Amino acid sequence: MGIVVQNIRRAAAETVAQFAEFGVATVHESQGRTGLLAPAMRPIYSGARIAGSAVTVSVPPCDNWMLHVAVEQCCPGDVLVVAPTSYSDAGYFGELLACSLMARGVVGLVIDAGVRDVKDLTAIGFPVWSKRIFAQGTVKETIGDVNTPVVCAGALVKPGDIVVADDDGACIVPRDQAEDILAKCRAREAKEAATRTRLNAGELGLDIYQMRERLAEKGLRYVNQTDLD
Amino acid sequence: MGIVVQNIRRAAAETVAQFAEFGVATVHESQGRTGLLAPAMRPIYSGARIAGSAVTVSVPPCDNWMLHVAVEQCCPGDVLVVAPTSYSDAGYFGELLACSLMARGVVGLVIDAGVRDVKDLTAIGFPVWSKRIFAQGTVKETIGDVNTPVVCAGALVKPGDIVVADDDGACIVPRDQAEDILAKCRAREAKEAATRTRLNAGELGLDIYQMRERLAEKGLRYVNQTDLD
Amino acid sequence: MGIVVQNIRRAAAETVAQFAEFGVATVHESQGRTGLLAPAMRPIYSGARIAGSAVTVSVPPCDNWMLHVAVEQCCPGDVLVVAPTSYSDAGYFGELLACSLMARGVVGLVIDAGVRDVKDLTAIGFPVWSKRIFAQGTVKETIGDVNTPVVCAGALVKPGDIVVADDDGACIVPRDQAEDILAKCRAREAKEAATRTRLNAGELGLDIYQMRERLAEKGLRYVNQTDLD
Amino acid sequence: MGIVVQNIRRAAAETVAQFAEFGVATVHESQGRTGLLAPAMRPIYSGARIAGSAVTVSVPPCDNWMLHVAVEQCCPGDVLVVAPTSYSDAGYFGELLACSLMARGVVGLVIDAGVRDVKDLTAIGFPVWSKRIFAQGTVKETIGDVNTPVVCAGALVKPGDIVVADDDGACIVPRDQAEDILAKCRAREAKEAATRTRLNAGELGLDIYQMRERLAEKGLRYVNQTDLD
Amino acid sequence: MGIVVQNIRRAAAETVAQFAEFGVATVHESQGRTGLLAPAMRPIYSGARIAGSAVTVSVPPCDNWMLHVAVEQCCPGDVLVVAPTSYSDAGYFGELLACSLMARGVVGLVIDAGVRDVKDLTAIGFPVWSKRIFAQGTVKETIGDVNTPVVCAGALVKPGDIVVADDDGACIVPRDQAEDILAKCRAREAKEAATRTRLNAGELGLDIYQMRERLAEKGLRYVNQTDLD
Amino acid sequence: MGIVVQNIRRAAAETVAQFAEFGVATVHESQGRTGLLAPAMRPIYSGARIAGSAVTVSVPPCDNWMLHVAVEQCCPGDVLVVAPTSYSDAGYFGELLACSLMARGVVGLVIDAGVRDVKDLTAIGFPVWSKRIFAQGTVKETIGDVNTPVVCAGALVKPGDIVVADDDGACIVPRDQAEDILAKCRAREAKEAATRTRLNAGELGLDIYQMRERLAEKGLRYVNQTDLD
Repeated sequence: MGIVVQNIRRAAAETVAQFAEFGVATVHESQGRTGLLAPAMRPIYSGARIAGSAVTVSVPPCDNWMLHVAVEQCCPGDVLVVAPTSYSDAGYFGELLACSLMARGVVGLVIDAGVRDVKDLTAIGFPVWSKRIFAQGTVKETIGDVNTPVVCAGALVKPGDIVVADDDGACIVPRDQAEDILAKCRAREAKEAATRTRLNAGELGLDIYQMRERLAEKGLRYVNQTDLD
Repeated sequence: MGIVVQNIRRAAAETVAQFAEFGVATVHESQGRTGLLAPAMRPIYSGARIAGSAVTVSVPPCDNWMLHVAVEQCCPGDVLVVAPTSYSDAGYFGELLACSLMARGVVGLVIDAGVRDVKDLTAIGFPVWSKRIFAQGTVKETIGDVNTPVVCAGALVKPGDIVVADDDGACIVPRDQAEDILAKCRAREAKEAATRTRLNAGELGLDIYQMRERLAEKGLRYVNQTDLD
Repeated sequence: MGIVVQNIRRAAAETVAQFAEFGVATVHESQGRTGLLAPAMRPIYSGARIAGSAVTVSVPPCDNWMLHVAVEQCCPGDVLVVAPTSYSDAGYFGELLACSLMARGVVGLVIDAGVRDVKDLTAIGFPVWSKRIFAQGTVKETIGDVNTPVVCAGALVKPGDIVVADDDGACIVPRDQAEDILAKCRAREAKEAATRTRLNAGELGLDIYQMRERLAEKGLRYVNQTDLD
Repeated sequence: MGIVVQNIRRAAAETVAQFAEFGVATVHESQGRTGLLAPAMRPIYSGARIAGSAVTVSVPPCDNWMLHVAVEQCCPGDVLVVAPTSYSDAGYFGELLACSLMARGVVGLVIDAGVRDVKDLTAIGFPVWSKRIFAQGTVKETIGDVNTPVVCAGALVKPGDIVVADDDGACIVPRDQAEDILAKCRAREAKEAATRTRLNAGELGLDIYQMRERLAEKGLRYVNQTDLD
Repeated sequence: MGIVVQNIRRAAAETVAQFAEFGVATVHESQGRTGLLAPAMRPIYSGARIAGSAVTVSVPPCDNWMLHVAVEQCCPGDVLVVAPTSYSDAGYFGELLACSLMARGVVGLVIDAGVRDVKDLTAIGFPVWSKRIFAQGTVKETIGDVNTPVVCAGALVKPGDIVVADDDGACIVPRDQAEDILAKCRAREAKEAATRTRLNAGELGLDIYQMRERLAEKGLRYVNQTDLD
Repeated sequence: MGIVVQNIRRAAAETVAQFAEFGVATVHESQGRTGLLAPAMRPIYSGARIAGSAVTVSVPPCDNWMLHVAVEQCCPGDVLVVAPTSYSDAGYFGELLACSLMARGVVGLVIDAGVRDVKDLTAIGFPVWSKRIFAQGTVKETIGDVNTPVVCAGALVKPGDIVVADDDGACIVPRDQAEDILAKCRAREAKEAATRTRLNAGELGLDIYQMRERLAEKGLRYVNQTDLD
């Protein structure tokens, strides 16, 4: 405990930025349904979609001292990822810290705890994914770690991993797989665009995905309501 | 298990459509405070108000195969009602399935599980009431039922029942009582309009509803703060 | 049980009104991190910020009779604070009661239970902080108290205390400390404005708050990623 | 609302009683994984296992009046099943009501709400499955129904259905399937006894259930830890 | 913050001790259904029933320093009541602190947070009511208060109030009403003893409490199952 | 996905076994308050205390196929650690699987999901820590992984790590730190034994830990109740 790792490796900025074109669901599917944070993690306002490199912070419960330490380690395009070592829904983060992060080019915060000043954060347009909105203050008494691996809302996050977040929640892409997953996202989106056109035209998924035969094999039976009367 | 009931009975389309004029609270009150789904069922965006005939789907946990089967059974004006046989908050439903349902004239989805692609669903205007927003994917391995009675979020829903949903949640009207409940909704709304006028003018509910005498009988006493000092 | 206290003491109207300039987080910090309601208390729509004198109501579970009694005790600038004597998430409050409260100049409702008619309440602009949105109706069978001290969502509220609420939740200021806390809010806001300017300019909290030395004393160590390989 | 159905049909007493030989998991599996109540329903003490015919009670939130009405409808071997019309965790039931039920030969209570006097209920050996232990009292103001179908903890229960409950929770068997399900329980138990002998002897489920080939088809690969280094 | 109130007033020891003869439900009913802590507060082992004078501790989240301060303020027959100023389920209390409290004659602990060493606490017979069992440690950095009024699990507790706890949870009796409530508990128990005898003999609550007429007035109707077919 | 790692490295059997002498709280403290699973993980019966080497299983939601695969990888003294890839409280595990594990010398199960046959598991003495007791069955359709790192109930578990579990919950010790942590556990226990003797004799923690001066520096003030009147 008490370590700040400097100069972490990040994926190429242009790679990271491209993830913001894809939704969390697409990214999550493209990497084999891994990396999702728990659904308790919700955005404080609707419509934001971000991608960035994770600067991780391991914090004591109800103590936000290390957030100030972490700010200095942030670069443009980063996302701060905060995980308490024990459950806390206290308000670790508010508008002043957001100002500081925005001054460094940080694009958002993911925190498995509480956040406050939500009205102001919405006004200045700094997006946050948290499990709680709560004004409860924190202390500055105990140190923690910056840029060590953390478990945040049930997902393992290593410093430099890519964080993607939107209205569906947040998802983590391992740094060394970024290029590969990005390619898969593109392929998936292309395929879905074709399917979308057919579905919009009224074609059925049952036919597009050729499900009828396998369903029959599993024993699916069709009956009429009148036959049951 | 493994039954798809076709050609279910629905209430008259013009009857069903009129329910959308009334809020969930009005419908719930008009049928004797029955039929409400649990409050965990929330809309993915604010302001929608729908009414439609229920096409019910009983699905295995974390398996959305039957949703594709159910789409084919939907008619214009229907609402898809999805109930897992065991707790699941996985994201059974996303934007592609919404495109397919919209192509068939379905007006909304009520699901006692998770939904994803919320940003896209909001953009295309397909309303969903769910207990969770979660990008977690599902499999297509096990069959279930379409158009059999289900318990969804604590309420019994039979195929063809009327589903009413708005910012307050969702409520189920038995198909064979639709006309009767509709009439009661109208009557209730008329009565409330008259009360609203009086309340807006400053009259008290205590007087409008003639509560003072019964409250006194129950023993209600008025004292002054100064008398307690 | 069964007492209505009339003519409670309130703080000066101009004092109360000024609290609405400050966020809940600021007020909470200014009074030593006390008085916050539990984070389950959420606004039914975003963006409202109110301050008012508490008219308290102790209600039986699932019984909203006393709300009608309480309306008569409200003055312009008041906030109704409702606490059930046992857990309930039923919809005690809807649009008609809001009309009645607005006619008396009440600025909002804080209720440790459910609320309904949310679409209408949003339309008429009556803000509510509740732990649930639920259309479930209540009865009118059992009396309770108006303007006695209550525990609401974990906080003690005495009649005449100041209620401040915004997107962060709700906070209670004891009536006899109103002037003192107001002054502290002003001082805090002034100090934060100065800090904000420096943070926006890129200065670090580590330096502004002079944290580096104390962090080093606690044992914080900086290492480079390459040193760990 | 306000109906008491008398002289409900019950399954044969000797059929019902035999269900108590099987665990909830066995019964649930034998009827195709249906009928389970939500896992929030827990026994107040460990080790009880009961089976009985359901006498159902639909009660208002925080109002236990109808429990007194229901007692009169109970016969030896019955299980009382109580479902509030809206969420309540109040203590509807305590030791005096248990005395009354025991005097009529009732073998247990299943209640989707709270129970109290747990120390006494344990001492007299009256088993209860509830979602909460809570001393909070209820009122006797509003009527409900006895012996109409209810949704209890997510499961549909019709009067006369068989209730089976043990340390795993509670499960409902439809009355008209009782004989059939009982036979399936016996068959399942016999088969499991044979498997148990083989497993205890160290044989693997992989071999007994012949899973290896299908797992390989799905793509399961075995590697050595040393190969990953 | 930071106050320790010494030499608080307690009710007479013989009065306090007598409350342990009554269950929490009886005490709660005898004082008009007030004073109950939330049902999340559960005993760490079954069968204990205690009564004692409250020594209250207001603690920071995840910081148990003040418990050591509080021990010195305890007298034989006291119950320690601990309330964090913000949500925490950390393990504030374990076997060593229990040894210290037992050495001073303290009869139990009520804590709206976590407890640990449960196996040891059970072995030495020190009863605890908590909302969580959790080994997570706490720090000793921030002070709080001893013997000031606290809100614990939703109930107001003043130092010197009587705490009664058993398998049903915990309940608070205001110190100045102790004698009065004790008398009511006795009266209630005597009345219940008489009712118990009649119920055990098979008499119905419907007749003992003379409910039949009032139920009929409310509209309760009896029908036969065969009439509904 | 779909990998089974064989012949994982384990700590020395005699090292692992010695951890069972220490409680979870001691182990957690001895390794700097890390490695604890979430408090939702509870034992199915009281009094068990185990330590073993982790065989990890990553399972799909509501699919227990991989548990059968994992059994074959278990050695005497192992603990099976099961983590679903998405939330599930289904009953993955029952008495037959326990028989199979016991035949291989496995000492317990830690599962971030549901378990069933609790009455039988208690009878045969196979301890389980789970977040739910639920009879809900699972399917065998989708493969997962055995002996890859998993996040279980918020903690990272690598195959071969030491699992310690008792009535307080469960804690993970990294394999390569086992000897070091064991020594710290011993030292801690020795120190606590000395403190226990002093506390039992009535000495105060305030004095033993020499807290008085630091508390005074923080501003703690002692007042008499009579001074506040």
